[in-house]
Amino acid sequence: MIKAGIIGSTGYAGGELARLLLQRDDVEIKWYGSKSYVEQKYASIYQNMFQIVDDRCMDDNMKELAEKADVIFTATPQGLCASLINDEILAKTKVIDLSADFRIKDVAVYEEWYKIKHPSPQFIEEAVYGLPEINREKIKGARLIANPGCYPTCSTLAVYPLAKEGLIDMDTLIIDAKSGVSGAGRGAKVDNLYCEVNESCKAYGVASHRHTPEIEEQLSYGAGKKVVLNFTPHLIPMNRGILITAYASLTGNVSYEEVKSVYDRYYGDEQFVRVLDRDVCPQTRWVEGSNFVDVNFKIDPRTKRVIMMGAMDNVVKGAAGQAVQNMNLLFGLPENTGLRQIPLFP
Amino acid sequence: MIKAGIIGSTGYAGGELARLLLQRDDVEIKWYGSKSYVEQKYASIYQNMFQIVDDRCMDDNMKELAEKADVIFTATPQGLCASLINDEILAKTKVIDLSADFRIKDVAVYEEWYKIKHPSPQFIEEAVYGLPEINREKIKGARLIANPGCYPTCSTLAVYPLAKEGLIDMDTLIIDAKSGVSGAGRGAKVDNLYCEVNESCKAYGVASHRHTPEIEEQLSYGAGKKVVLNFTPHLIPMNRGILITAYASLTGNVSYEEVKSVYDRYYGDEQFVRVLDRDVCPQTRWVEGSNFVDVNFKIDPRTKRVIMMGAMDNVVKGAAGQAVQNMNLLFGLPENTGLRQIPLFP
Amino acid sequence: MIKAGIIGSTGYAGGELARLLLQRDDVEIKWYGSKSYVEQKYASIYQNMFQIVDDRCMDDNMKELAEKADVIFTATPQGLCASLINDEILAKTKVIDLSADFRIKDVAVYEEWYKIKHPSPQFIEEAVYGLPEINREKIKGARLIANPGCYPTCSTLAVYPLAKEGLIDMDTLIIDAKSGVSGAGRGAKVDNLYCEVNESCKAYGVASHRHTPEIEEQLSYGAGKKVVLNFTPHLIPMNRGILITAYASLTGNVSYEEVKSVYDRYYGDEQFVRVLDRDVCPQTRWVEGSNFVDVNFKIDPRTKRVIMMGAMDNVVKGAAGQAVQNMNLLFGLPENTGLRQIPLFP
Amino acid sequence: MIKAGIIGSTGYAGGELARLLLQRDDVEIKWYGSKSYVEQKYASIYQNMFQIVDDRCMDDNMKELAEKADVIFTATPQGLCASLINDEILAKTKVIDLSADFRIKDVAVYEEWYKIKHPSPQFIEEAVYGLPEINREKIKGARLIANPGCYPTCSTLAVYPLAKEGLIDMDTLIIDAKSGVSGAGRGAKVDNLYCEVNESCKAYGVASHRHTPEIEEQLSYGAGKKVVLNFTPHLIPMNRGILITAYASLTGNVSYEEVKSVYDRYYGDEQFVRVLDRDVCPQTRWVEGSNFVDVNFKIDPRTKRVIMMGAMDNVVKGAAGQAVQNMNLLFGLPENTGLRQIPLFP
Repeated sequence: MIKAGIIGSTGYAGGELARLLLQRDDVEIKWYGSKSYVEQKYASIYQNMFQIVDDRCMDDNMKELAEKADVIFTATPQGLCASLINDEILAKTKVIDLSADFRIKDVAVYEEWYKIKHPSPQFIEEAVYGLPEINREKIKGARLIANPGCYPTCSTLAVYPLAKEGLIDMDTLIIDAKSGVSGAGRGAKVDNLYCEVNESCKAYGVASHRHTPEIEEQLSYGAGKKVVLNFTPHLIPMNRGILITAYASLTGNVSYEEVKSVYDRYYGDEQFVRVLDRDVCPQTRWVEGSNFVDVNFKIDPRTKRVIMMGAMDNVVKGAAGQAVQNMNLLFGLPENTGLRQIPLFP
Repeated sequence: MIKAGIIGSTGYAGGELARLLLQRDDVEIKWYGSKSYVEQKYASIYQNMFQIVDDRCMDDNMKELAEKADVIFTATPQGLCASLINDEILAKTKVIDLSADFRIKDVAVYEEWYKIKHPSPQFIEEAVYGLPEINREKIKGARLIANPGCYPTCSTLAVYPLAKEGLIDMDTLIIDAKSGVSGAGRGAKVDNLYCEVNESCKAYGVASHRHTPEIEEQLSYGAGKKVVLNFTPHLIPMNRGILITAYASLTGNVSYEEVKSVYDRYYGDEQFVRVLDRDVCPQTRWVEGSNFVDVNFKIDPRTKRVIMMGAMDNVVKGAAGQAVQNMNLLFGLPENTGLRQIPLFP
Repeated sequence: MIKAGIIGSTGYAGGELARLLLQRDDVEIKWYGSKSYVEQKYASIYQNMFQIVDDRCMDDNMKELAEKADVIFTATPQGLCASLINDEILAKTKVIDLSADFRIKDVAVYEEWYKIKHPSPQFIEEAVYGLPEINREKIKGARLIANPGCYPTCSTLAVYPLAKEGLIDMDTLIIDAKSGVSGAGRGAKVDNLYCEVNESCKAYGVASHRHTPEIEEQLSYGAGKKVVLNFTPHLIPMNRGILITAYASLTGNVSYEEVKSVYDRYYGDEQFVRVLDRDVCPQTRWVEGSNFVDVNFKIDPRTKRVIMMGAMDNVVKGAAGQAVQNMNLLFGLPENTGLRQIPLFP
Repeated sequence: MIKAGIIGSTGYAGGELARLLLQRDDVEIKWYGSKSYVEQKYASIYQNMFQIVDDRCMDDNMKELAEKADVIFTATPQGLCASLINDEILAKTKVIDLSADFRIKDVAVYEEWYKIKHPSPQFIEEAVYGLPEINREKIKGARLIANPGCYPTCSTLAVYPLAKEGLIDMDTLIIDAKSGVSGAGRGAKVDNLYCEVNESCKAYGVASHRHTPEIEEQLSYGAGKKVVLNFTPHLIPMNRGILITAYASLTGNVSYEEVKSVYDRYYGDEQFVRVLDRDVCPQTRWVEGSNFVDVNFKIDPRTKRVIMMGAMDNVVKGAAGQAVQNMNLLFGLPENTGLRQIPLFP
């Protein structure tokens, strides 16, 4: 039995983590952390858990939690995990951090984009970027996992094969992303009220979104050189889902079949990445509630560009599901344990 | 291994049935029936099943299917199951009919409300109304299950305990129901287009909805006398979910605690009916994707009425989930096998 | 040129008031009041007004505003208008209060349901309940208008004719209401976040909603006796719209034609109440953005009840549009001035 | 009094045309054309017009209509207007065609992208592309207006100034568009059902959407050379609204102020194009129900690209509103007659 603790369990990612773990027989949640709801019954915050969870919310106490848990998930604002973590904790337990604290190797880049001083840069080097489809082996032996951001997961997986194979000119890469509202979190802000979001669509964080350097770093590893790109997220009136539409110029003449075979080579054995059939566009409804990323591409012979697309549930593969996938790897379990949900439709 | 066949597998209820059964290790789907999509790949209709289901859709052939399947689900329009069924089929396989064909014992009532001649009234008597919380024992030995309608499931479960205990005046019962759009099916009709439904709310089938006599019949059994009631469904711009608000005059002075204890007595041991805490109103979001029905009530001392409420996922407990629950009972399995999904939120 | 001031101009009702008044040539808005956004540009809060309104938000100062304005609209929380108003102000300007402060004649009832002490009960008697279809003549000469609540407007108009004519047993009246989310206001609360409301439906304020005594009072005037009823509002995932489904037992045998003729008699000359054709159910989409209330009814011969329905845009006829209608009456203008918008669809 | 006829009045664009024209005192609609609903009351199709329009739908008869109308709007599928039009008709009446028949000057391009033979290519040369902000003077004297497509209107207006001024490298231009569902029309298709679209997001027509050559042609005029670009539309779960996010490399070093001054120069005097303040992103909710296009841009110094954005109501400025704007120009009226609606929010 794996003993797990969740710090930040009342946010949307934390709630999904709880939901996923509670459906397993081999994991026990020992700690429902939530600074905002200390002492309140967890099921009064997430009524879907009524008669399923009887626990009350606990304050943040990573030290105490490290005594009780084999793995700690931190689904908390930037800076918190990095401020709580230390060698003593890492000696006792695994930590899977869903915030951005350990995703970016260059601390200066982190501090520039996140506008905070990193509280524990000494752990950055050790942390493993938890994108199993790329870093599987490294993840297995890690103590500290930097669980990827939602946009970076979908963007990287959609673009990585062509970047790595040198099929696209990385200087031309543009990623236009669309996300459901759960990505904005559960904080009470006027901007995220129903009537403000519903029946509307907007770009935000144009040329300044914090996931940009994370995507750039991962694709740089693939391309073997520094990548600078445009990333523009948009807010879409739906609960869950991320759709990525990426554009890049092809470096040469390649056929549909050649590009398809590259994607198949990278993802043919992957359980959570589905390369769709020709001309089928990824749609978020076909992955909702699952850990799948659906990817596909289209070559435009007129402009000699390739359009790469990816669809994913931001709360699952973009957050909690991927964290569970990482946990499975850390504990030597089959990677899809507890993650075999078929997408919910409609 | 239970061998199952689904006739009408490309409707919303059929798709959910497939989704639920595919997540089990003890069931194998042998037949994806769909008159409209014969020979097409099932996963091309329901792309969420991509790389999960490789089968193609089959035409309706209940006779052939009866040879192959231990259980047949018919998720088809009214009249179809009743026109295909016969003693030979029932001798070979169990049938769980998700249509209304065998729900109503009085064939004249069926024919009046459904405006069709019943094709096989000889099986009505034998058929068991598959609401396990009320008919559990009868279900276990049946050959033919009439899987309840979505509104009747939620309405009956919310009202039944007080009807049975004589706490409410059945002549005053009014049920006001709200449903997501999946209840309207997957047929291509202007009325169900996105732009017609979104940002709108309406009543429909006022004083004439076909689920009325089904609810009346079930509550009559509870009340021990003929019940005539008002039932008004409303269309709500959401995919899934049914909410029931029922009103009735109390027959005497009862306290919150007394009524609560009645509900607890009826449902305390039920796995899928949750009686909520005082003053917590059922919400469809807290049951989405699960087989739960959340019920609660409020006494209004000013009017001496009780307001009974129920929330449910119409595609799960209102259709496919309940069918699976019935299948579990028919095959002697734990009733919640394959139905332990925690509601998805958000 | 009518000079108008709006206190509470950055709430949804206040914003709609501004929008309606700005489209007129005979009204000038002199004061965009907003405690929360003092000194900010109004068009930075409501970007739809960009390049249309250049004003900045002003603090609440009813005394100063009374010097400048011919009419003051207060679209503010309960208690505020009543705490600011005095004889001096009413001597100088008309006041149309969109809060509940002056809607209920019995101050004890107000204080019981609103849980606050009424700050200026001396003005309650004078205030005229601003439902023009019923109180038109009284409104014309008033200084202080109590603009009706959204639910009471739709409920009263749907039920009033049959109450007044004695066709329904008022002791059996039950009103089940459904509202879009704008009715919950623009405050930043977790409960009103997109992901909390979207894809869900719930009742709230069951047997305790503050609009109950307001509806009861108005229908009591119609029925000529004290009315006590059940009123249950529900939150629906849409921006605008209220739908009312009301149930009552008929006092005798009446035909469709008789009931229809009653509605026609009451509303045939009304510009904003449309009695729909037989069997056409009111839908909120057909009134969105307009000052219309669509009403209709259905007799159920099985239960001897009549189901009365009404649909309305809660922000227009339920708030700002009705306030403008009242302003038109106060200033001797044609009642539909600035209110001839045809509903927006889709 | 301008006498107008609408062919295709029961589609979403036709319905909006009716709505806009009915709110005017100087226009009379003489013909509600609708092949699908001949003889049915128009208000039974569009219940928002109940008690406003008493007419019944008429079959397509452009010849007869030309006798009665000063202007004919054709809001019909591709090929219809071109098949009905002739010199006799154009001698008697103005025609504003909302289909694509006369938008593209090169008939071969039209036939390639639309996969139909053009029925009357002899009128292509004469037709004026009805984008008033660019072609205002030509429109005034025309007999036949090709009303622009929704995506081309928003795309062209967002990009045109920088294309014309040579500030962007047209070979790098990529347009990523998002549209509400009304753009897909009112046809009964499974793909546009509520449950298929809601809670989902997808690209469609990737590298093959028919609006591509229309955008290319218009921007080619601006750039003074042939433009080939990528255009990718996405379907968004909302009724109305188009959002354009366009990417291009800057041809040189330009400051925010320089680019802003270009936009201001082109649109400062325009009534329907609003250049937003620095860092304010266009949102569809701020233009809904109005004829506005909100545009803005952001320079990314890291990639030396400019991101150009535009938001618009696809049914108004993208269809019916622009048609009315063109009608106003044709008849010598102030361009904003009947188009001064302030966007509806929420």
